[in-house]
Amino acid sequence: MVKPVKLAAATAATLALLVGAAQADEGMWTFDNVPAAAIGKSTGFTPDAQWLKKAQLSYVRLAGGCSGSFVSGEGLVMTNHHCISDCIAELSSAQKDYQADGFLARNRAEEKQCAGIEINQLVDITDVTGKVEAATTGKTGQDFANARRTVLADLEKDCAGGDDKLRCDAVTLYQGGRYSLYKYKRYQDVRLAFAPEAAAAAFGGDPDNFNFPRYCLDMSLLRVYEDGKPIASPNHFKWSREGSKEGEASFVIGNPGSTSRLRTIAELEFIRDNVAPSFLFWAQERRGRLIEFGRENDDRRREALDDLSGTENGVKVWRGRQIALADKDFFGAKVRAEQELRAKIAADPKLAAEVGDAFTQIEQAQARYAQLYPRFIMLERSRAFDSELAAFARLLLRAGDERGLPNPERLREYGDSRLPALKQRLSNPAPVHAELEIALLSFSLTKLREQFSPDDPIVKAVLGKRSPDQVAEAAVKGSKLGDPAERLRLFEGGKAAIDASDDPMIALMKLVDQAARQARKSVEEEVDAVVEQAQARIAKARFALYGDSIYPDATFSLRLSYGKMQGWTEPDGQEVAPYTTIAGLYERDTGAAPFAIPPSWEAARGKVQMSTPYNAVSTNDIIGGNSGSAAINAKGEVIGLIFDGNIHSLSGDYGYDPRRNRSVMVDVRGMAEALRTVYDARHLTRELGVQ
Amino acid sequence: MVKPVKLAAATAATLALLVGAAQADEGMWTFDNVPAAAIGKSTGFTPDAQWLKKAQLSYVRLAGGCSGSFVSGEGLVMTNHHCISDCIAELSSAQKDYQADGFLARNRAEEKQCAGIEINQLVDITDVTGKVEAATTGKTGQDFANARRTVLADLEKDCAGGDDKLRCDAVTLYQGGRYSLYKYKRYQDVRLAFAPEAAAAAFGGDPDNFNFPRYCLDMSLLRVYEDGKPIASPNHFKWSREGSKEGEASFVIGNPGSTSRLRTIAELEFIRDNVAPSFLFWAQERRGRLIEFGRENDDRRREALDDLSGTENGVKVWRGRQIALADKDFFGAKVRAEQELRAKIAADPKLAAEVGDAFTQIEQAQARYAQLYPRFIMLERSRAFDSELAAFARLLLRAGDERGLPNPERLREYGDSRLPALKQRLSNPAPVHAELEIALLSFSLTKLREQFSPDDPIVKAVLGKRSPDQVAEAAVKGSKLGDPAERLRLFEGGKAAIDASDDPMIALMKLVDQAARQARKSVEEEVDAVVEQAQARIAKARFALYGDSIYPDATFSLRLSYGKMQGWTEPDGQEVAPYTTIAGLYERDTGAAPFAIPPSWEAARGKVQMSTPYNAVSTNDIIGGNSGSAAINAKGEVIGLIFDGNIHSLSGDYGYDPRRNRSVMVDVRGMAEALRTVYDARHLTRELGVQ
Repeated sequence: MVKPVKLAAATAATLALLVGAAQADEGMWTFDNVPAAAIGKSTGFTPDAQWLKKAQLSYVRLAGGCSGSFVSGEGLVMTNHHCISDCIAELSSAQKDYQADGFLARNRAEEKQCAGIEINQLVDITDVTGKVEAATTGKTGQDFANARRTVLADLEKDCAGGDDKLRCDAVTLYQGGRYSLYKYKRYQDVRLAFAPEAAAAAFGGDPDNFNFPRYCLDMSLLRVYEDGKPIASPNHFKWSREGSKEGEASFVIGNPGSTSRLRTIAELEFIRDNVAPSFLFWAQERRGRLIEFGRENDDRRREALDDLSGTENGVKVWRGRQIALADKDFFGAKVRAEQELRAKIAADPKLAAEVGDAFTQIEQAQARYAQLYPRFIMLERSRAFDSELAAFARLLLRAGDERGLPNPERLREYGDSRLPALKQRLSNPAPVHAELEIALLSFSLTKLREQFSPDDPIVKAVLGKRSPDQVAEAAVKGSKLGDPAERLRLFEGGKAAIDASDDPMIALMKLVDQAARQARKSVEEEVDAVVEQAQARIAKARFALYGDSIYPDATFSLRLSYGKMQGWTEPDGQEVAPYTTIAGLYERDTGAAPFAIPPSWEAARGKVQMSTPYNAVSTNDIIGGNSGSAAINAKGEVIGLIFDGNIHSLSGDYGYDPRRNRSVMVDVRGMAEALRTVYDARHLTRELGVQ
Repeated sequence: MVKPVKLAAATAATLALLVGAAQADEGMWTFDNVPAAAIGKSTGFTPDAQWLKKAQLSYVRLAGGCSGSFVSGEGLVMTNHHCISDCIAELSSAQKDYQADGFLARNRAEEKQCAGIEINQLVDITDVTGKVEAATTGKTGQDFANARRTVLADLEKDCAGGDDKLRCDAVTLYQGGRYSLYKYKRYQDVRLAFAPEAAAAAFGGDPDNFNFPRYCLDMSLLRVYEDGKPIASPNHFKWSREGSKEGEASFVIGNPGSTSRLRTIAELEFIRDNVAPSFLFWAQERRGRLIEFGRENDDRRREALDDLSGTENGVKVWRGRQIALADKDFFGAKVRAEQELRAKIAADPKLAAEVGDAFTQIEQAQARYAQLYPRFIMLERSRAFDSELAAFARLLLRAGDERGLPNPERLREYGDSRLPALKQRLSNPAPVHAELEIALLSFSLTKLREQFSPDDPIVKAVLGKRSPDQVAEAAVKGSKLGDPAERLRLFEGGKAAIDASDDPMIALMKLVDQAARQARKSVEEEVDAVVEQAQARIAKARFALYGDSIYPDATFSLRLSYGKMQGWTEPDGQEVAPYTTIAGLYERDTGAAPFAIPPSWEAARGKVQMSTPYNAVSTNDIIGGNSGSAAINAKGEVIGLIFDGNIHSLSGDYGYDPRRNRSVMVDVRGMAEALRTVYDARHLTRELGVQ
């Protein structure tokens, strides 16, 4: 076992920086452009159309932002524990804390509904690039943004055809070089079958996050119901009994959220100089407040846990990215790569004419973005209103306004095809914690004043003669939006109901709504539209130069990654082996959180097979959003459950380093041994075929 | 009145970026190189030797890091309220909260001693460049660092001559291009005569910090005693009755702490990519923890206040610097300036030979620094041990070890000339707050684990099988170092007493002492020594090219800044007037902290002269450390008391922009009116000559 080290950026020479073709094991490939030959060469197995179709239909997306997959014929879905922590918190009570104690349904009747979880199964992909281009050709700026919004809304609506059980998402690929329409089957009755204790799922907590060797049982099992009964799921991945071996092929199917590998240097500099510092500045204070809030007593610690985990994860991600973007070798290689691409374009008169001043336009748009960013992020992205109640208030306020407009004219998230998901969100009975709400809203109002100055008209409108604490307390304590029934009443009542409401949180959000909308409009028209059109021209040049050997940046759409079970060598020469064992978990236990194993594992000492592989790494190219993805072998059997990347993967937003970028998974053998021996869940191991 | 805006960096064209001669009103000049002609040209007044000598002797330094000045013949010293907040906290009790209520001694007998404050009066400056060069010529790396440490320690010791009432500091100027020896008279019996309420002194709090228009009474009056009686201070600045007018000359005498204007681009990139992100990452979480700690109840809020103010100030400073260093115009101008300097050097064969590869050496040293920095900052700069008790423990531990060595071989801060100040620090009776200590030490131990990983040997040694909370609680609750008598006992007992001690905080600091010393040694030898020698060569080239028309970077040594009372024009065209009035304070009052005026000012409504100038700005080039500096007119009369810079001054670490860089002062007329009318302190206004 070797010690994990902090991000040491790769040297430029061996980095795949994606002007040209991807290198071995690199890429998050769309299912309509799978590099079969390269896969065969790297793994010895070449997937065919049937294999791919089954993989696509066995996979599911959790609408909140994770991946999952069917693992039995009776609707059983495997995903991470950290993907369903909202549900676990919501099912818990003062009497029964499933976060602390874990949850196991002994039979179907005991399975408990996760009201906030929607599961989507991708049933169809259609290329709609031609339709989008036809609708937007010759348009720029505001006209382009409007035309594009209209055509995408129409495409999504026509695709769903008014069927609430379908959801269609228009997906932008290659920064606007291609558009696809993804049609999903929606499942809203999702129930919890199994979740281990948080202490087992997230053993090592934030200190071990993004590190390896690792010892986490970051898994959960859900079941999808329809009409009160488990659905049939003939397309599913079986669990492998044998598991994997070092060097064996590993395929990861899931929804990587977002990467920036095809972005220009101007865009990356914007991220380095604006997005990363701004996020970390905000998140680190939020983190400190949440930790100290939770140190007060156990109830508060529980209430703050979810926000804290999310914040700490974001902090680690963005600190890693910041380090990668400040690394002279890494960023220098990106700069040279863009110079090469631009030289190749310049050398081809036809391409040069088509691309025109695209790079300069993007650069100018970033300079404009730097001016717009603070208001955009504070007002429209709600960094100034860090409160669930405030989010509900804005949703209701805007739903009231937007539903009065024709579908194509609405903000995209209020399009007809998105309304069922909004309604589900509003009806989620998860409790809102008033003290935590006040603490966070007060924090974020302080940030608003700090960023805009006490003399800014928005700040004066929001605070008046009161302090952030006073405003937060009045809005939270006076609001009834913690009650799902009240939220649904206002949603159903539409604009008239909102206008009639005297809820102070709605009043607060009304104060800033026009300014927030304006901030968004400016970014969409002056930045996004410009960048997207320029990037589309660059994308065409890339296709011309490199053909289909490139993959689009991740956009939370379905992707296939291929690779091998493999450790890596640290820059200082230390070898990191690809597997850990359950024995390592017991060795690492200190008895003090976050390195304390729960009582169930204490009790299993002596019974559990200590040599069982527990966590593992592979060369798969993944990123946030892939959480909950199954890792499968060539036979389509589950060999692991992705839950993290190693520390070197944090530069993966901008490029893939095959030497050290690794995905981290729970080994299927560790999951099976835990269910069998620690949790005595034989009914589940039987269903999974690994009893 | 116009609204303050956030830092908008200046355009490159008009920036003084200091390869060449300084421009009008720029510079923090040493008293042995005052640009008399330039001053005459800008202000209409040319100071002579007598004027300068009186200014030097009227000024004092607060050993903790502020400036001040004598303002009467009976030892009365004027400085900022925020410079003595430690003393105010220490004098306060549950019965009497001077932070909230202010303090006024009605007569000398009521003046209360500030045990932690030492006041130094600069009596002599000697150029010792030749001696340092003679001792270090031909040496590099470790040899250079040792030789330099030895010669500086010898110089300081010889200068003080064993007299506890003197303190001598060797001062490095021009990054090693010159060395001076500053001899100070030390005063350790300093008593508080007047301090307003924190609500008046820091009206507007963090939101208004670095902003203008401003409404702060950030002043305090101390009195220096010797042998139980006020000292005679024939050299002092009288308060002006008339105050200043727009356009009038303003001279600021004080101790600017540190600037980086002569640093190379490689050094600035190191600051941008390492120092700033690392500080903000740490400070923002600390800030969040302190705020939430204080939200619990009023006692805690008071306990955390000082740490919080310091952290928030640091955050604003470093965020401003980060923005300046990321600004393409600002930083681009610095890059071009260095290119010009290097071109001029290259064009002169003799200079080129002398400078050699100095720039490259600095660049390589920065790359090495990036590797060493995390351990250096966490262990040696105690970012991992955020606790007053831990600081005492390290001081005692090292004092025990170091005093066993010959003076020149010791760490500089344990040299014979520094021991009286150490002893004063140890005897300070200010209470240590256990809950706050535990919270901060736990926080910082978490950062240690986060930065080094749970598997690092230092982390394992410090935490063992315990959590940061457990380690912090055990060390704080078990330590007796909160008691000044115990600290003095251990100090006097030397190494034997430390070895015999079972204080858990000393045990904790012992665990990391060797690693911390090693981290420091590496930085001193592999970075500092290399940079200093290379910078000395560059400095000689600068002298050859530009003569005495350049000033050294600030190093917390006495400097003169000249300028004029003057507002500025914002980039968006808004004019900011140079003075605010007391009327503006009442207008800005909201009743909610930090915009709530205290009861004394409420009571003075109707009595106080509303049109009295209250705060003001001038073009003086200042920076942190200048807090408490007097602003004087050509007659040597106090026209104001510096307490801040405007938001544009935050880029002042790297360059001075005469268009917008402004210092912020309390106007002397506002101070006099407050003492007269609000605080009824006629005995003080009489002593100040403005009754």
